[in-house]
Amino acid sequence: MRYARVSAGGRAMWGRVGEREIELLSGSPLDGDPHVLGTVERSTAVWLPPVVPGVFYAVGHNYPRHIEHTGAATPERPEVGYRANNALTGHLSVIVKPREVEGRFEAEPELVAVIGRTLRRASYEEARAAVFGWTIGNDISARTWQHQDRSFWRSKNSDTFKPMGPWIETDVDALAQTTTLRVNGRERAAFPTGDMVFDPYDHLVEITRHLTVHPGDVLWMGAESTCGLEPGDTVEIEISGIGVLSNPVHLEGNQQ
Amino acid sequence: MRYARVSAGGRAMWGRVGEREIELLSGSPLDGDPHVLGTVERSTAVWLPPVVPGVFYAVGHNYPRHIEHTGAATPERPEVGYRANNALTGHLSVIVKPREVEGRFEAEPELVAVIGRTLRRASYEEARAAVFGWTIGNDISARTWQHQDRSFWRSKNSDTFKPMGPWIETDVDALAQTTTLRVNGRERAAFPTGDMVFDPYDHLVEITRHLTVHPGDVLWMGAESTCGLEPGDTVEIEISGIGVLSNPVHLEGNQQ
Repeated sequence: MRYARVSAGGRAMWGRVGEREIELLSGSPLDGDPHVLGTVERSTAVWLPPVVPGVFYAVGHNYPRHIEHTGAATPERPEVGYRANNALTGHLSVIVKPREVEGRFEAEPELVAVIGRTLRRASYEEARAAVFGWTIGNDISARTWQHQDRSFWRSKNSDTFKPMGPWIETDVDALAQTTTLRVNGRERAAFPTGDMVFDPYDHLVEITRHLTVHPGDVLWMGAESTCGLEPGDTVEIEISGIGVLSNPVHLEGNQQ
Repeated sequence: MRYARVSAGGRAMWGRVGEREIELLSGSPLDGDPHVLGTVERSTAVWLPPVVPGVFYAVGHNYPRHIEHTGAATPERPEVGYRANNALTGHLSVIVKPREVEGRFEAEPELVAVIGRTLRRASYEEARAAVFGWTIGNDISARTWQHQDRSFWRSKNSDTFKPMGPWIETDVDALAQTTTLRVNGRERAAFPTGDMVFDPYDHLVEITRHLTVHPGDVLWMGAESTCGLEPGDTVEIEISGIGVLSNPVHLEGNQQ
């Protein structure tokens, strides 16, 4: 099943995504079993981030080739950082490159686990059972700011820097897929989605030793490859079996 | 006015806090003008964190004497980091010290600004007008973990590490107050609440150059002084004109 959030009549609503239509739902599938209120044409949908998390977890260095490329140390245990909800935006929405950004402005294609159950001190199997589904994230990063900021507040959390979507796919073996990054239709990177140092369940086992994870929380899993973006580009991330997250890049002040 | 969130009949509800009673409200005062549904005795209230933020901002080094004490560099511009909602707990709730924690386990008494309006590219005056009210935060920190973690995920965001409350006070000149930290009734620190390198409005001006702040977001303002805590202690933070946030400390597994 594919679940999305769309803007319908000015309201954010959950929907079940079909080939041509989206069934609008009475509530979140994370809270129970919503009923169908109506439908909208998929081609006219305004896609929102498929969930607004209570806590937005993000894994850093998690792909061996990315670690080799950056010269970072291979992590000895799963760790997480945080991203911020203000930066979320949906499929087909604009990524705004601020005029003040200098240096590389990059896309990072990431698998995202959407949590469906409350978890504390989870086993690996409990962690597997607690993932509701999977979506795609683009961890847009302004590198010069990343080196200047004490945290990643500007570099990774400026408005529109966290496209997520297009939907949550509940029926896929996410770790057996391929992640492909394209700019203006040209492939810039492709890697096995599951080629991680620690997988999503390893992370959930480790972090729930200390904290409770809740339905709707998201865990972004890091990227193997990145590529630079320029205003005017359209960046697409495909994860086979999940879908394609596509966003145009505009220079600040040139959004229309 | 003092607004709180309390557990009433198993439900989280907003309330308006009086001397003896709490008026239960139909919704959040951040969303409009809720009406009164009933009252509960204040002495029987179960206090919840007074707001669950969409984004949980936290300032690091922001008091000259704290910066001097830690040997850190004085920040040249306002910056923020993040904390996580799972760690929030209310007034009178237990702070759980994990058994794995070694080294210092510390309280950090902080002023908290609760945002009431959507802000982007705010002036100093717009930032002032956008603060709905003020509450108190205790930025509990496990120092050994803080030095081991790549982010502050365990050290500052384990469950119960972020007591906040008891309520939001809307009518106070928060920067003209005194913050007092007590353990088991004994004063351990006291400092002028407003003696900051950059005040809350400076921070809102700077961060809204790059991102949108939303109603319900919180901004924790850092601490001048800290002190160590042990299981069995009760830690109190008073900010004059706002109130007292009090929490007992229990060792993990000894919560009852």
